[in-house]
Amino acid sequence: MTWTITADQIGDLARGAALLGTGGGGDPYIGALLARQALGDGSVTAVGLDELPEDALVLTVAMMGAPTVMVEKLPSLDEIMAPVHALGTYLGRPVTHVACAEVGGVNSTIPIAAAAALGLPLVDADGMGRAFPELQMVLPTLYGVTASPLAFGDEKGNVGVLQTVDNKWTERIARVATVEMGCSVMISGFSMTGAQARESLVGGSLSHCIEIGRGIAAARDAKTDAVAATVDLLGGRELFGGKVVDVQRATTTGFARGRARIEGEGADALELEFQNEHLIARHGDEIMATTPDLIMVVEADSGEPITTEGLRYGQRVRVIAAPADERWHSAEALDMVGPAYFGYDLAPHRFDGTVSNGTVSYGTVSAGEHSVAAAPVPA
Amino acid sequence: MTWTITADQIGDLARGAALLGTGGGGDPYIGALLARQALGDGSVTAVGLDELPEDALVLTVAMMGAPTVMVEKLPSLDEIMAPVHALGTYLGRPVTHVACAEVGGVNSTIPIAAAAALGLPLVDADGMGRAFPELQMVLPTLYGVTASPLAFGDEKGNVGVLQTVDNKWTERIARVATVEMGCSVMISGFSMTGAQARESLVGGSLSHCIEIGRGIAAARDAKTDAVAATVDLLGGRELFGGKVVDVQRATTTGFARGRARIEGEGADALELEFQNEHLIARHGDEIMATTPDLIMVVEADSGEPITTEGLRYGQRVRVIAAPADERWHSAEALDMVGPAYFGYDLAPHRFDGTVSNGTVSYGTVSAGEHSVAAAPVPA
Repeated sequence: MTWTITADQIGDLARGAALLGTGGGGDPYIGALLARQALGDGSVTAVGLDELPEDALVLTVAMMGAPTVMVEKLPSLDEIMAPVHALGTYLGRPVTHVACAEVGGVNSTIPIAAAAALGLPLVDADGMGRAFPELQMVLPTLYGVTASPLAFGDEKGNVGVLQTVDNKWTERIARVATVEMGCSVMISGFSMTGAQARESLVGGSLSHCIEIGRGIAAARDAKTDAVAATVDLLGGRELFGGKVVDVQRATTTGFARGRARIEGEGADALELEFQNEHLIARHGDEIMATTPDLIMVVEADSGEPITTEGLRYGQRVRVIAAPADERWHSAEALDMVGPAYFGYDLAPHRFDGTVSNGTVSYGTVSAGEHSVAAAPVPA
Repeated sequence: MTWTITADQIGDLARGAALLGTGGGGDPYIGALLARQALGDGSVTAVGLDELPEDALVLTVAMMGAPTVMVEKLPSLDEIMAPVHALGTYLGRPVTHVACAEVGGVNSTIPIAAAAALGLPLVDADGMGRAFPELQMVLPTLYGVTASPLAFGDEKGNVGVLQTVDNKWTERIARVATVEMGCSVMISGFSMTGAQARESLVGGSLSHCIEIGRGIAAARDAKTDAVAATVDLLGGRELFGGKVVDVQRATTTGFARGRARIEGEGADALELEFQNEHLIARHGDEIMATTPDLIMVVEADSGEPITTEGLRYGQRVRVIAAPADERWHSAEALDMVGPAYFGYDLAPHRFDGTVSNGTVSYGTVSAGEHSVAAAPVPA
């Protein structure tokens, strides 16, 4: 299905994307500014995975770095376009479509700005159905799509193109370059045909973000419970509610790493641990949810998502969890994004607290089944 | 002048290059192995700057990283060629000549291996007339030649191409990538026309290295003083002789940094400080020589050069100093490679202990004057 993205949808889209970004993926206010500036009175065509030509040349566009730094370094349109141009030149073929690598307040809107500036259509899909901190952590990696050639560029005009032996090496080299270049750069990579995009991306995620963002706004306007509405929409559950009483956060090796403590009634508390995105939700000795399932913090009353860099002492919040795209629960995916990868000696816990056994095979999940639940196309 | 490099000249060339490498530029044993392997029974054509076509496409080829690591990571010919191929593809024009970025035990011989493997002629010249630790520290930088596009590659097969806003940024990004890739990579960059090479390189340096290396061997064979012969040939002076009694060395941020103490008779001692290459020679309160002039450590009896990573307790050594290419004493050059750049609150001291006043203008030094003294072409 093909539809049109205009500036008036950006607020809802950024809000929904920030929620699914599970704490990372960038600040929705910044992200919305960028996309609105690029769209102006114009629009971008969003193309469903089902309508993507087999031989399309799809590139992802994203901001890489620590979210704590991203909020202070708003990229210009020139900076957003530079890696796409560098990559197109390197590939020697015209780019036909832009796609999102992940869902997030900035990383769902930067591709809109890129598509608008480049005059290209945008694929209504992304590489994760959420946000993850490292570059190789996208479903296309499981399908053999290479991150490289990957282009990166900064606000000063420095640009690089990497051709690496695997996607983890793209991450390693691009990460140290990112840190040296100021902890935040624009990247473009994961070049794919239409067929590869259809197979490996999470479909409908932009529509889904708009639906979520609109739902939160509508519940607030109707003075109903926005958080409950979101939980219903995601098929998730509410884990905890309380006050943020402690936040530890450090920007190290290019990531925002830390933990937050949320106290409820009495001494009851939930602990969250994050690396850009929330990784673990722990309630006393009980693991309530872990990566790859989605752990999200929202304002208790308004349901507005709060990013990990936006967590502050005293905020009244509710913490919700929801299922990740089912392919993230395959053994191969859990090796890449499960708690063990991040250094936790923990089994992966699904959003409902049950343990993920890694027996899902991403190869046998059909395109229809693994897409984000079909969302109504925004009017 | 055009002449031919064959395997039987490599020993002398690597020895002379290791001397002018002033402690850095790589181990001559490793460098000689690499070049002999690539040459086999064949040869490489060496082309003087005077015979370089105006429209030649000259690229430098070098190993970048900490010398302490280079000695343990012998690159394959495929690894040496990969960045040249990547850069040629990026530039979209055929490379016509290979050149040396610096003089050193490895960085004078790697380009020979590259030229042999690629079937290209080699320019009898280099970018410094010595070795320096950072990528931007070449005379072409002063003449506006850009380091980028710069290609880099490792033994695993990872390759990258950088296009940066200045040569210092090429250094910064390539350096962090080098560290991540194992502290030693192959690079190719500073693409130049023949006219640019003629203007900015130090001419005759390969011939000069062979002459120096041969002189050391001949003096030893004749049982005359090899060190005195070298000092004469370089127009330098001997600073000190004694025993190495202390070496501190750390491989940090991609460099081998440290200091060495050499004791003579009684409590008399010379202190050397280095970052890959020797930077400062201090005798009590007296500064005897500093970068950019050449400070070299050789075995007391044989006159064989000792690299900074080869310094060991108990070695009997002599320390000599010699003048750098005069263009290194311009104000612009001293900003780039003088003691202050490396963090020393010291005026630049020439090899004879006098202070360099930075009044040399590199723009007005003619090509003939700034070349290394014309060396007889090796038979």
